[in-house]
Amino acid sequence: MKNEIRVFAPASVSNIACGFDVMGFAIDEPGDEIVLRISERPGVTITKITGENGRLPLEAELNTAGAPLLSMIDKLHITCGIEMEIHKKMPLGSGLGSSAASAVGAAFALNELLDLGLSKEELLPFAIEGEKIASGSVHADNVAPCLYGGFVLIRGYNPIIDVVEIEVPENLYCTVIHPQIEISTKEARKILPKTIPLSDAITQWGNTAGLVAGLLKKDFGLIGRSLQDVVIEPVRSMLIPGFDEIKKAAMDSGALGCSISGSGPSVFALSSSLQTAVETGKSMKTALERFGLSGEVYVSKINKNGPRIIELK
Amino acid sequence: MKNEIRVFAPASVSNIACGFDVMGFAIDEPGDEIVLRISERPGVTITKITGENGRLPLEAELNTAGAPLLSMIDKLHITCGIEMEIHKKMPLGSGLGSSAASAVGAAFALNELLDLGLSKEELLPFAIEGEKIASGSVHADNVAPCLYGGFVLIRGYNPIIDVVEIEVPENLYCTVIHPQIEISTKEARKILPKTIPLSDAITQWGNTAGLVAGLLKKDFGLIGRSLQDVVIEPVRSMLIPGFDEIKKAAMDSGALGCSISGSGPSVFALSSSLQTAVETGKSMKTALERFGLSGEVYVSKINKNGPRIIELK
Repeated sequence: MKNEIRVFAPASVSNIACGFDVMGFAIDEPGDEIVLRISERPGVTITKITGENGRLPLEAELNTAGAPLLSMIDKLHITCGIEMEIHKKMPLGSGLGSSAASAVGAAFALNELLDLGLSKEELLPFAIEGEKIASGSVHADNVAPCLYGGFVLIRGYNPIIDVVEIEVPENLYCTVIHPQIEISTKEARKILPKTIPLSDAITQWGNTAGLVAGLLKKDFGLIGRSLQDVVIEPVRSMLIPGFDEIKKAAMDSGALGCSISGSGPSVFALSSSLQTAVETGKSMKTALERFGLSGEVYVSKINKNGPRIIELK
Repeated sequence: MKNEIRVFAPASVSNIACGFDVMGFAIDEPGDEIVLRISERPGVTITKITGENGRLPLEAELNTAGAPLLSMIDKLHITCGIEMEIHKKMPLGSGLGSSAASAVGAAFALNELLDLGLSKEELLPFAIEGEKIASGSVHADNVAPCLYGGFVLIRGYNPIIDVVEIEVPENLYCTVIHPQIEISTKEARKILPKTIPLSDAITQWGNTAGLVAGLLKKDFGLIGRSLQDVVIEPVRSMLIPGFDEIKKAAMDSGALGCSISGSGPSVFALSSSLQTAVETGKSMKTALERFGLSGEVYVSKINKNGPRIIELK
């Protein structure tokens, strides 16, 4: 039996312009690292959290990575205790699915460490327990892509979460810029309209259907035309200094489309080549800096794997 | 040079539960027939209309099949005159794209008769001229499937109509029942809400994306789960006597899903086998008859061809 595991769980981009609350994809970096050790002390003991300046709770039941473990221990009648280290490698409130990565990383790690043999479908509800703590509501559009890897559609939640994996074209690249400000997901939800014009809803569902069709048909033109958000982006972009200029810079660099990652402030763009994705990152960064903000840029393919084991011993 | 053409243009099912205003597919029957003859009399002369009890105008500019021809003659500088017979083989106000079929049939026929060599993309705007007369607004969710055949997504209209052809699984069958009542498309639009809850919109765009994914991935289960309409059907179904019972009968017979065709009163169901589609038709008819209404039932695969030439001489 193994005694310790270290895993990586990737960041993810959710909403993806038109697909608010129903779409997300994983990226190669950044991502969180979770270390679990079998312990004689029962329950879950969080021994260390790094990378978040002491802002996350050490109490397992209040922690997005702790809650999934507690739920697994309870539901699966696990008798051993677990010690956990959480190494945040991406900022909180960045719009990159930071809490989802920690929750998924923890659930994935325990499954591997104890050889529980749970499928991704079976792990998902546990990971969602963690996400619930972070966002205050049940959303799987970061958790599912982080766990499954790739591009994921959450068709619906009723009666159970319906996760649909959408194959993406080989040459699809993502550029993410993370401006050095923070937006709380809870706050970003509060400013959303409760009702929207039917005409805007129709535009949006034409685009969600178009985006899925574009991905599955490997039609980059269609993907680009579908990456439009007439409902959420106009509201939330006001929280991101220089958003319009960052987006314009991305489009001028040849990106297929550009919008807010999750609830922001990160902004993502999709491109059909690595070169365009890199150029897009540079020009987005230049645009952001004109507003006196610095930003970290990440360029990667869509991450097709989800979490992975770094070390198991 | 040929002097006369007779074409068939198929009925179509639009909206398809979740895809209000953005989706439609063509079916094998019913459909309209259009006859065009080259004439010495300039312009468009409608010599005969059958199957509609004298309710459609003989003035070409007011007729859904006449307007496309006038527009083609004008824009393409056609010098000969055209005589037209319109044989309505499906009821007006049935929710089966009757006006679209006539408009498409006329535009398609003229293109073939005069060897104009227009592509479907080029014919589409002319056919839409006719649909505009019927519905009072520019909608392509019957015209495009009727013209292109197959299952069509209208991703959007801005800046131009974006028609996306969605390949469907081979064994997808449609059952349509047309209750013997009439609903005006214009009236059926008036009762729709101007705004909808954001949460309903999210449910709907999860389903539109799910339906496209289900079709392209040939996943009948996903198709079925996506065939849900929380926005339009709850309102419009009130205009259709016995709708809930007809739908229940279809689902009990094993259909993947069931909803209103276009603005109704026709109701469609999709099935994964011919046998289920036929059984579904029988039970929908029985359910309808309990409400004292008779109804015509049509069962077919998705029509992949669009309009076709019956005779050219």
